[in-house]
Formats: sequence, C-alpha cells, structure tokens
Amino acid sequence: MQLVTVGTVAFDRIETPFGKADKVVGGAATYISLASSFFLDKLGLVSVVGDDFPKDMMDLLRGRGVDLAGLEVLQGKESFFWAGRYHYDMNSRDTLETRLNVLLDLDPKLPEHFKAAPYVLLGNLDPKVQAKVLDQVTDPALVVMDTMNFWMDSALEDLKKVIARVDILCVNDAEARQLSGEHSLVKAANKILAMGPKYLVVKKGEHGALLFSEDRVFFAPALPLEDIIDPTGAGDTFAGGFIGYLARTQDHSFDNLKRAIIVGSALASFCCEKFGVERLLQITREDIDHRVQQFIDLVDFDIELVED
Amino acid sequence: MQLVTVGTVAFDRIETPFGKADKVVGGAATYISLASSFFLDKLGLVSVVGDDFPKDMMDLLRGRGVDLAGLEVLQGKESFFWAGRYHYDMNSRDTLETRLNVLLDLDPKLPEHFKAAPYVLLGNLDPKVQAKVLDQVTDPALVVMDTMNFWMDSALEDLKKVIARVDILCVNDAEARQLSGEHSLVKAANKILAMGPKYLVVKKGEHGALLFSEDRVFFAPALPLEDIIDPTGAGDTFAGGFIGYLARTQDHSFDNLKRAIIVGSALASFCCEKFGVERLLQITREDIDHRVQQFIDLVDFDIELVED
Repeated sequence: MQLVTVGTVAFDRIETPFGKADKVVGGAATYISLASSFFLDKLGLVSVVGDDFPKDMMDLLRGRGVDLAGLEVLQGKESFFWAGRYHYDMNSRDTLETRLNVLLDLDPKLPEHFKAAPYVLLGNLDPKVQAKVLDQVTDPALVVMDTMNFWMDSALEDLKKVIARVDILCVNDAEARQLSGEHSLVKAANKILAMGPKYLVVKKGEHGALLFSEDRVFFAPALPLEDIIDPTGAGDTFAGGFIGYLARTQDHSFDNLKRAIIVGSALASFCCEKFGVERLLQITREDIDHRVQQFIDLVDFDIELVED
Repeated sequence: MQLVTVGTVAFDRIETPFGKADKVVGGAATYISLASSFFLDKLGLVSVVGDDFPKDMMDLLRGRGVDLAGLEVLQGKESFFWAGRYHYDMNSRDTLETRLNVLLDLDPKLPEHFKAAPYVLLGNLDPKVQAKVLDQVTDPALVVMDTMNFWMDSALEDLKKVIARVDILCVNDAEARQLSGEHSLVKAANKILAMGPKYLVVKKGEHGALLFSEDRVFFAPALPLEDIIDPTGAGDTFAGGFIGYLARTQDHSFDNLKRAIIVGSALASFCCEKFGVERLLQITREDIDHRVQQFIDLVDFDIELVED
C-alpha cells in the first residue's frame, strides 16, 4: 500500500452559470484517488457509502489500483449528498443542500494491510475522524491534511490537534487567514507552521497556489482556461496529484514539493473542464505531461538584472 | 524625450483597515513617472494641477528627470482630489469622495519637444483626453494605455476608439471581463486583442498579472508581502515600471514584455509597502534588482516530465 486516503465518497448536484449536473459521483476521496492513481498503483480508500452507490464506479476505482477494503457499504442507507450553486465568478459557491446520510456513521477502521502505508491523505472531514485514521497508521513518512472553514467554526480545538500531527496542511487563502487571524498570507503561514506542519499549501483557485516552509515560498499559477465548466473537486484533485507525485518520487525536499504543486495544479485544471470526475477519467499521463509543459511555459522568463 | 505620460496628478485621502493618510500626493501620472524614472532620465509629464500642489514635489519630480513643461498649473484652483477606503481584503475599495477640480479643465497640449517621444503612456483618464494626446504625438514606437470600468460604463464608444489605436492595453480582470462580455480571461483576451491592441495586460492585484498576445500567455505572480499598507497607485506603478523597462531596452518582443511585467510587478510590490509614493522615493535600483530576484525564486521550479 503506497497511499491511504480518507474522505467522502458521494453524490453531488452542481449548478453553474453555464450548466448543471443532476447527480454525479463526487466526494473528496473519489477525486483524490483518481488523481493520485496516475502516479501510484496501490491505493487504499477509507470511507463509507450507502447501497445506492454505483457498482461500476467501484469497479472503475478498483481498475485504477484503488483498494476498497476500507470502503464500508451500509445496506439500506443512502450515500452522502451535496448540492451547490456556483456564482458567476466560479470562485465562490453556495451550498444548496447537504444530506449527511451515511457520513454520520463514518467510523474509519483501517484494514490491516492499510496501516503501514507510507503516505496518508486526510481529506476534508470532521477532525475527530481524521484523528482516528492517524491513530491507526503505524509510521507514515508523510501526512497531508485538507480541511475547511466549517471545522474552524465548529471544531477548532479538535482541528488544531490534528493539524499539530500532520506534515503538510492544505487550505484556501480565506481559510489560512481565518485559522491564523492574520490578513497577510506571509504572517498567516508563519502562524500556521508554528502549529505543527512543516509545510503549508494555500490554494487560491483560479489564482494558483502558494507553498510555504519556514523560510521559503513558492508560487504556482493556475492555468488560464478557455472554459471553466465545474470547479467542484479541483482542490481535492490538486491534493491527490500533489501527494501522488510525492509518493511516487519519495522525495520530500522543498524543490520536489514545488514539482508536486505543479503536477497537482495541472490535474486540477483538467478537473474543471467537465462536470464531476468526467475529465479525470478521460486524460492520460501524456495529457498531464503536456499540461505540465504549459505551466512551465506560462511562468518561464529570463531576466538579467538591469545595470546602470 | 524618451517617454510621455498623460494622467492625473492629485491629492489622495486613503483609509485602510490598518491606518490612514490624510492628504498625500498621488495620481496616476505621479506614480507612473516615479516608477519609470528608475529606467529613464528624459520623461515628459502631461497633466494639470491647482496652485495648491506642493512645489517640493514638483522639484522632486524634476530631480528625477521628469520634464514638467506639460504640467499646467491653474492659479486660484485646486488639484484633483480622491478619497477612498479599502476593505479588509485590500483588494477592493470604495470611493468616498471625488473632487475633479482642475481635471475638468484638462485639455492636454504637448510641448513641441514632447511630440516625438517614442514611448507614450496614456494613464487612466477620459478617453477623449487620451485621444487628444495621441493626436499630438508624431510617430510613437509603442503606446500603452490604462483605463477603468468607469469609462466602460460612461464612454464606451470613445474608449473603443482609443483602444483601437494603442499597442498595449492594461486593465484588471473584472474590467477585461466587462469590456469583452466574456467570463473566461482567455476568451476575454481574444476579444480585446481583436479590438486593436497587440498585447493585453490583465492586472490581478495580489494575484499577479497576465500578459496575452494572439497566441501566447505569460503569468507573473505578485510577491506575497508581509504587510500591505496601501495598494493605491500599485497599478500605475506597475505600468510605469513596465513601460520604463521597455523604453530602456527598446525591445518589444514577447520575451522582453515578460521581463517588463516582472519589473513592473516588483515596483508595484514596493508601492504597497507605505502610504502614497513614500516607498517609491526610498528605494534604489539595487532594491529593485533584489526584488526581481525574489520573483525569479518565487516561481522557479525544474521538473522532468514523469515517465512510466
């Protein structure tokens, strides 16, 4: 087992100014697993669904190396369901409906062969659930955690306890500001790194992503896209590509984290091109390489410092 | 004369969540001229002020190579005054007060020795005024134009006529979307370039800047700053650094425009560190070089495309 991911596996209903999708498969762990499967072939997924979850999607995940021994299927219950509507700018959204359903019963129990996984991705979930996963893994080389403002509002103390135990925290810019109480992202990063993580990733959607260590910072742009159809799952896809690349290369240096950020950004850009996971199911490693090259070109410049 | 700039020379009252400045010298042409003066020593400024405008600021501009023969001083009248308040995110602001004062009398007449200037910067102003400047220059090698949503709302036809006559248009992302009627910045850029300009610069404040040509795109980040004190004038400072670098190097290739974007971004980052023009008056060419190096480090990565 190379990577264990805990997170939601769900149905989404998505409305954007440009279209809608009625009931598509989504959930953080779905996006993360699909994205990391481009780099790994032994992936463990920990989550819970109802018996309404489509078998062919499970087969599809298995076909990509995702071991579903940690996916509990609760008979007679329904899968987690989320509905949201994006604003015209596609950067902000309103939640229209949340039916937790089986998520209320999520009590993660890792199969024995998951416990020694060197890479662990804690998808956005109740920090108590994230902590339970950490309690069960034996000695991970790297733990990446995603979370959201919801838990900062409702479970800050539990959240901080988990943050103290992870290597890399991923949040968006508003969440970094909320968590730290600092407006400046530089100051926010310093405060958050003092809470425990060695690195902080700040996701800024169409404005790219920042990577902070104690003394370094790296910025990766988002690719300007001709059409953004649906940003749902882009942050999870980013995280999946990021940790997938790290787990494949097994190099946790700042320079390699920068590469992982670019790979994650490339995958996230694909995610936005169709509703749900559709685009992730179409692309190949060659497509990813081609897109990484677009990122290289996008920010590439050479300058000699001007002399008087 | 290397560069002629037309734009406001004004007083600003600025409030931010972190402090305020009561009546400081501002105005687009002031910021542009100060920024470009790091690269040029024969600058012409075209504007109008009242007799309340401080003599020592005029001397200071002259000391930096800014020829004020095109700056009309109207006796018994007051200079343009703008007051604004920034929101907590420092990316958006409300205008609290605008006193046009002498700006109502701005009828630009270029001194003879300004007319052959190879570089022209049209700062944000009524497009009719911008057009009058273009009518008077003989054969500029490069014309850069800045504008704002205000003119898109109130003088769109005049604005489009000027846009058709310039080489490079600078607007922010919301303005690019408004001007083109396209949400996607890629599509917006295509439509705007079809209006006439060869290049489009999309300024995104703390999220950096994009440069579009017909078939290429370049992204420059903004530097994550420890403290943003006052973003007023950052866009003008960017434009001034951008055209100053181009006028110094006299190379209008896409690759050199990328360098100019980085130089403009570096200058804009300084501008935000103090109220008004204060920081621009403190820094040296060495400081700028040092900051350009920070931009290089910020986006630098090397990646070999992953092989199976």
